[in-house]
Amino acid sequence: MQITKASGKVEEFSRVKLERSLRRSGATAAEVKAVADVVERKMRTKMATHRLYKLAYSELERIRPKAAAVYSLREAIMELGPEGFLFEQYVGAVLKEYGYTIKRGRMVKGKCVSHEIDLMAEKGNITFIIELKYHNKRGIRSDVKVTMYLYARFLDIHLGHTKESSHKPWLMTNTKFTKSAIAYAECMGVKMTGWRYPSKEGLQDLIEKKGLYPVTVLPSVNRFVRDALTEHSVFFAKDLSVLSSREVQKRFGVNADIAKKLVKESNTLA
Amino acid sequence: MQITKASGKVEEFSRVKLERSLRRSGATAAEVKAVADVVERKMRTKMATHRLYKLAYSELERIRPKAAAVYSLREAIMELGPEGFLFEQYVGAVLKEYGYTIKRGRMVKGKCVSHEIDLMAEKGNITFIIELKYHNKRGIRSDVKVTMYLYARFLDIHLGHTKESSHKPWLMTNTKFTKSAIAYAECMGVKMTGWRYPSKEGLQDLIEKKGLYPVTVLPSVNRFVRDALTEHSVFFAKDLSVLSSREVQKRFGVNADIAKKLVKESNTLA
Repeated sequence: MQITKASGKVEEFSRVKLERSLRRSGATAAEVKAVADVVERKMRTKMATHRLYKLAYSELERIRPKAAAVYSLREAIMELGPEGFLFEQYVGAVLKEYGYTIKRGRMVKGKCVSHEIDLMAEKGNITFIIELKYHNKRGIRSDVKVTMYLYARFLDIHLGHTKESSHKPWLMTNTKFTKSAIAYAECMGVKMTGWRYPSKEGLQDLIEKKGLYPVTVLPSVNRFVRDALTEHSVFFAKDLSVLSSREVQKRFGVNADIAKKLVKESNTLA
Repeated sequence: MQITKASGKVEEFSRVKLERSLRRSGATAAEVKAVADVVERKMRTKMATHRLYKLAYSELERIRPKAAAVYSLREAIMELGPEGFLFEQYVGAVLKEYGYTIKRGRMVKGKCVSHEIDLMAEKGNITFIIELKYHNKRGIRSDVKVTMYLYARFLDIHLGHTKESSHKPWLMTNTKFTKSAIAYAECMGVKMTGWRYPSKEGLQDLIEKKGLYPVTVLPSVNRFVRDALTEHSVFFAKDLSVLSSREVQKRFGVNADIAKKLVKESNTLA
């Protein structure tokens, strides 16, 4: 049976791929099989991968809520959109957990012009100039133009420093890179982090290794709740698991029912 | 009375500005006054500059066809769109008239990646790597990102050459540049040509100095005729003035009536 990818490309459905992505969520072999069976029974030809995912998610949620949250990570990141503002803050919070000192929206003088930097991340004696490319649709790749632009920016900042500068360019995105973007970046020393790039150190890995799931993985987080939480700098689902539902209710101005659900859901995930 | 600019900004109508732009077309002081009078009588408040232009054009066309063609140059360039393909060919033809050797759509190897270059222009021992930004709406400015991207491209090509490379970056557009694009370009040695930038050597000047008006300035050139002419590499109105209407009819497959008009119009302009 055929499926339609986010890019519009139609390809053969692969049960192997579906099972692999389900296994990544921490579900057992039996659970993976059960979910994949349901998906295969319910899917229709040329169904969008997005809808396929919904089928898998709701079945997994029914039998193993924690695995469902992990499985839904990519969608949860999309729910930080549609603009890149929350994603920027979220990524900043993730990098902090990895020991970086974060500065946001700084103006930095270069040799020729001034640059507004999305995110600066300092660690040891290196300061990364981070350019974030947030896409709230799948199937978009950050191309070589962005990488080259970032390099030129870095170069201008570098040349603008009288002393040896410790700046390095870093491009981060929640989607993929084109092949030539990767070739250029590797050749010129631009650090790049995509959803699953580089292998084992992609954004997904950075999140999963330390359990830094965004609050949008929790089923009860709608847009209103999301904004209430992030306005108080609560970006990680696990930050809710240490609170009582009374505290959640009071601190974020949500009702008792939602507060109870949020704490319960975050505990399931923790 | 107020007018609405292409950017959406509303500002006070300036008769001085209108007269200045009309004078640039070669119309006499009396003709300029006559046209401006008609425009002032017919205009309505918050009218789009585009419609204001139409009023001026039709009056000028009535009293001095040649000046009207010059006056309509900017619109004629817009009619090379909506894509940048014809503009690219037209600019190539203009640069040839200035003694450049032109190559289009070439792949050039850099240090890290290969680059497809819109237009390469060689003269003396310098080869310009030209990036074209064509806009078929007014009020758009090419920003510093494009300039930086072009610089990074140039740098990659430069670094990819074992011998000293003679490449220089050149950004051309039919609209304007942002201030920081200009600051960056001047600082890093990126050549830039916009509609009226640099002063006296903008695209408009390059065209007017040698009378290289595109065929789209001729009133009888519709989209069909434009494509018939440009497919035969006829980009300049003046190229038609040396032909008989019979030749025009035969060579471009247009009817006798249109052919006669085209030759007549191109002669008025010549």
